[in-house]
Amino acid sequence: MNLADKKLLVIGLGLIGGSLAMAARQAHAVSRVSGYDRNEESLKTAIQMGVIDQAESDLITAVNSADIIFLAVPILSTRSILSLIQPHLKEGAVVTDAGSTKGIVVSDARRVLSTEQLSNFIPGHPIAGAECSGVEASNPALYVNHRIILTPIEETSTAALTLITDLWKAVGSEVDIMSVDHHDDVLAATSHLPHLLAFNLVDTLAKNSENREIFNYAAGGFRDFTRIAGSDPIMWHDIFMANRQSVLKVMDQYLDELHLLRNAVAHADGEYMKSVFTHAKESREYFTQLLSDRNSKHK
Amino acid sequence: MNLADKKLLVIGLGLIGGSLAMAARQAHAVSRVSGYDRNEESLKTAIQMGVIDQAESDLITAVNSADIIFLAVPILSTRSILSLIQPHLKEGAVVTDAGSTKGIVVSDARRVLSTEQLSNFIPGHPIAGAECSGVEASNPALYVNHRIILTPIEETSTAALTLITDLWKAVGSEVDIMSVDHHDDVLAATSHLPHLLAFNLVDTLAKNSENREIFNYAAGGFRDFTRIAGSDPIMWHDIFMANRQSVLKVMDQYLDELHLLRNAVAHADGEYMKSVFTHAKESREYFTQLLSDRNSKHK
Repeated sequence: MNLADKKLLVIGLGLIGGSLAMAARQAHAVSRVSGYDRNEESLKTAIQMGVIDQAESDLITAVNSADIIFLAVPILSTRSILSLIQPHLKEGAVVTDAGSTKGIVVSDARRVLSTEQLSNFIPGHPIAGAECSGVEASNPALYVNHRIILTPIEETSTAALTLITDLWKAVGSEVDIMSVDHHDDVLAATSHLPHLLAFNLVDTLAKNSENREIFNYAAGGFRDFTRIAGSDPIMWHDIFMANRQSVLKVMDQYLDELHLLRNAVAHADGEYMKSVFTHAKESREYFTQLLSDRNSKHK
Repeated sequence: MNLADKKLLVIGLGLIGGSLAMAARQAHAVSRVSGYDRNEESLKTAIQMGVIDQAESDLITAVNSADIIFLAVPILSTRSILSLIQPHLKEGAVVTDAGSTKGIVVSDARRVLSTEQLSNFIPGHPIAGAECSGVEASNPALYVNHRIILTPIEETSTAALTLITDLWKAVGSEVDIMSVDHHDDVLAATSHLPHLLAFNLVDTLAKNSENREIFNYAAGGFRDFTRIAGSDPIMWHDIFMANRQSVLKVMDQYLDELHLLRNAVAHADGEYMKSVFTHAKESREYFTQLLSDRNSKHK
């Protein structure tokens, strides 16, 4: 499969879909980039901005002629869209996605796709984002030097995995391969739990209206937390619904440790506090250095 | 009391002390800026960098001639330094500090200072900081447009409060006045608790050595958390020891809410999640806007 001969269809022209479309187009990575979105304004904007070569107003027609289909839709919409397009996929068409949790996407795909289609389904998750959203925010450089995690399953064909790997490399990404379960655990720890902690902090403090002045003193830790808590509530609801098991597992570890730390504060156990803070600081420095060494060796 | 005629002594030439000294000197806010530090290298550097006019190697002599004394030392050292300098303070000398929690500083001052000295003691906390530390990091612009919170007590004289207010305004700060208890509650919520949550996250995740790769996926929330967790463990130990009651109060509210959110994830209660996330986002936007309006009216 030669990437340059393929026709790419992006379903969902938000920041994630629009940026991949625009980057693939500018890099001449594929022979044509078309786009579909429920919102006609987004389609018009995508054409005007040069995000896509061709706007598709009918999903079935669009899918009929696509060699690669990139789903960039809310994660809980994946199943219904797969069901809609499944009967119309070209033979050998490769389907990939951008969902933040992979277990639920794989389970959706297994329910909807045929065995042959499943071998050409590559679950993926680009670790990139921005404060802005919508097709207007499309940025062809969004993925440059950012990681894309692909989580092939046992049915996955090597040819399809290579094709999607090439697509992401063509737009500047570093491609990591890991298992579905491992991806969901890593993301629960590094992204989902931190967001939950930040939402919870802002919600807790804002419940007391006397607290409004705290937003004045956002130096230090709180500014970072409020920024995180400004993320889209519906998107995060979907992520937590989709990745419940992994989030619960790491959250319960976190809560156990937090109770120990709480009790150390309550009982003025300074040694315990120092050991936690020192371990956290050292771990951060150790792992940051380790990974920085490893990454520089790869270059 | 005219600020321009006063001799300022800064005790502790780290980032906080060095930056105030340098800023006051460059602004010609006072007639002379001298500095004391246990570390002779820091004193030499302070002279070389133009942080201070005069280096003091003997604390008693230094205190003898100072009109304003700024304590910029670790918070748990405040009491021993106040005890050392108390017998040697000039009549009418005004003492102020930069400790991150004020209750313990006020309690220390009440144990050590005479009634007259206490009327000239102004507890303060500049809400400013930087990634770097040490006298080399001294920055005369550190306090420009940053808030300084002063927490006068019932013994405080208006003249002394005005003098210290003028000093901070002279280096570009916005001066806020609040009670000691309120300060400690606000800082527990906006700074101390977020740091505890971040230290705890990095510590929890780093305990499992398989987790080292998570430091690779620090897009989104985790990067902010690891940065916070890189702070000085001893300084934070001191802060939590000094502000235990306020931290415990807000931490227990936080834990109660976090358990509710944990159970919502466990039972797939999407409505509850959405209500928390939406409330957090709205609160953040509402208060940010409110404060931005209020601040722009002031200008």
